[in-house]
Amino acid sequence: MENITSLNSPHIERVKALIGSRGKKNRELENAFIAEGIQAVREALNPKLAEGLAVKRVYVTESGMSKLAPAVDSAVLDKHEVILVSDQVMNAMADSESPQGIIALCSTKTLKLQDLWQAKPKKIAFFWQIQDPGNAGTVIRSADAAGFDAVVFSNESVDVFNPKTVRATVGSLWHIPVVSDVDINDFIAGATANGVSLFALTGDGKESFDSNFVAKTSTTPSAWIFGNEARGLPDLPSQITTVAIPMKGFAESLNVASAAAIVLHSVGLSL
Amino acid sequence: MENITSLNSPHIERVKALIGSRGKKNRELENAFIAEGIQAVREALNPKLAEGLAVKRVYVTESGMSKLAPAVDSAVLDKHEVILVSDQVMNAMADSESPQGIIALCSTKTLKLQDLWQAKPKKIAFFWQIQDPGNAGTVIRSADAAGFDAVVFSNESVDVFNPKTVRATVGSLWHIPVVSDVDINDFIAGATANGVSLFALTGDGKESFDSNFVAKTSTTPSAWIFGNEARGLPDLPSQITTVAIPMKGFAESLNVASAAAIVLHSVGLSL
Repeated sequence: MENITSLNSPHIERVKALIGSRGKKNRELENAFIAEGIQAVREALNPKLAEGLAVKRVYVTESGMSKLAPAVDSAVLDKHEVILVSDQVMNAMADSESPQGIIALCSTKTLKLQDLWQAKPKKIAFFWQIQDPGNAGTVIRSADAAGFDAVVFSNESVDVFNPKTVRATVGSLWHIPVVSDVDINDFIAGATANGVSLFALTGDGKESFDSNFVAKTSTTPSAWIFGNEARGLPDLPSQITTVAIPMKGFAESLNVASAAAIVLHSVGLSL
Repeated sequence: MENITSLNSPHIERVKALIGSRGKKNRELENAFIAEGIQAVREALNPKLAEGLAVKRVYVTESGMSKLAPAVDSAVLDKHEVILVSDQVMNAMADSESPQGIIALCSTKTLKLQDLWQAKPKKIAFFWQIQDPGNAGTVIRSADAAGFDAVVFSNESVDVFNPKTVRATVGSLWHIPVVSDVDINDFIAGATANGVSLFALTGDGKESFDSNFVAKTSTTPSAWIFGNEARGLPDLPSQITTVAIPMKGFAESLNVASAAAIVLHSVGLSL
C-alpha cells in the first residue's frame, strides 16, 4: 500500500481543489468529488448500493484504517486503490473540522431527468433553489429514510457534491438517485406527461397536510415540491395542488429541511 | 437618532465581542446577545411575545430602517434606543454573510427548570448535548410551529445565544420558553415528579412512532428526549419509553432536527 507522509504530495492539492472555494468548478471539470468520514466512505464502497458514484481512490490514516477495515469487506477494499497517509497529510486534505481519517475520491454521476421518468418513480421530492448545503444533504437523508425513489434539485440550487452536502447525507447520497440542475418547468411537464401528481408546499396552500390528505394522494405516483429557504416558491401552474403544513404557535414557517422531513416521512410511510 | 459612520466606534467592538470566537464567554459575562435580521428583530420588539429577552439597543442601516419601520409599531420603536449606522459599520459588526442591515443587542434571560415545571407545560422537547448551532435553532423553530410549551437543552449543548442558533430560530426564540444547561437526570426527576410522561427517540426504540402511538401518548403531559448528532442518547432509566421513527430505504438514522420535526409536528398537532 502506498504511503504518503510529505506535505508536498500532489495528492493534497488535488483533494483540496475539489473541496475548496473553487471546488464546484473543479468538481465539474474533473467529474469527481470527495466523500469524508466512515459512514460516507463505507456506503460509497458498498457494491449493493453505489449507483455509479464510483470510488476512484481512498485515503486513510492508520486510525482511519482501523475503522474502515472492519466496516468493509476486504475483497471490496482490495479492488480499490487505498493510500495510507499521515495525520498531518489528512489534516491538510480534509475539509471537516474533525476529520475521521478517511476520505474517498469518487466519480460524480449525472443522472438525467429522462432517466428518472423511465424508472417509473412513485415518490419524488423536488427542491427549488435550495441554497444551504446542510439542508440539501439533510433532505437527501430524509428522502432515503422515507423510502422515496428520487430527489431532484432545480437549477441554481447548491451543488450536491459540495463537501458539506455530501457529509450531511451521511451516506444516503449512495442510496437514492439524485438529479441536479433541473428546470422546474421541465420537471412539471415531465411529471404531468408521466402521470405523476404534483403537490407544492407553501404557507398559504389550499389543502392542509394531514393524514386524510396524505391518504388521498397515495393512489397515484406523486412529486412534492419545496421552495427556497428565504423566498419560498415562484408562481406555479394552476394544475399543481398547493399544500400547507398546519401550524400552531407563532412561527410563520418551518425550515425547508424540517418541512421536508414531516412531508416525506408521512408520504413515504403511508404506502 | 444617533448616527455612527466611524469604523473606530466602540459599538463595533462591543457587538463583535458577542458574536466572535469568544462570544459565549462574553455573552455570559454581559448577559447580552445579538439578534440579526428583520424577522428576529421584529419578534424581539413585539411586546406581545418577548418574554424577557428585552431589546437594549437596535442598530440599523438606512436600508434596514426601511424594512424595520413598516414592520414595527412606531410607538414601540420610539421606546428603544435606535442607532443609525453606515453600511460599512454594519458589515464590520454583523456575523451573517449577507447582513440585512438590522441587528439588536438583547438581554439574555435564563429561565430555570423549576420555573418550567411551575408553568405546567403539556408538551416539552428535550435535547441532549445538541452540538450544531443550526440544528439547535431549527428545533426551537419547529417546537414553536408545533405549539410545544418549551424547549430544554442539556448541559454541554451548543449555546442557544450563538448567532447561528439565534438566526436559525427565525424569531421563534422569542415565541417559546427555552431552558438551557439542564442536567438530564434533574430533568427526568422533575418530569416524573410533575406527572410528565417521558419518551426517548432512539433507532432501536421499543415502540414505533406512528399515529396510534401518538394518540396513546396524548392523554398526559409529555416530554420527548432527543440525542446528540453523532452519539445519540446515553443509557436512560427504564421508566422512560424508547421510541423509534419507522424508516424505509437504507438510511440508518435521521438528522436530529429532522427527527424532531417529525415528532414535534405529530405530537403537537395531535392535541
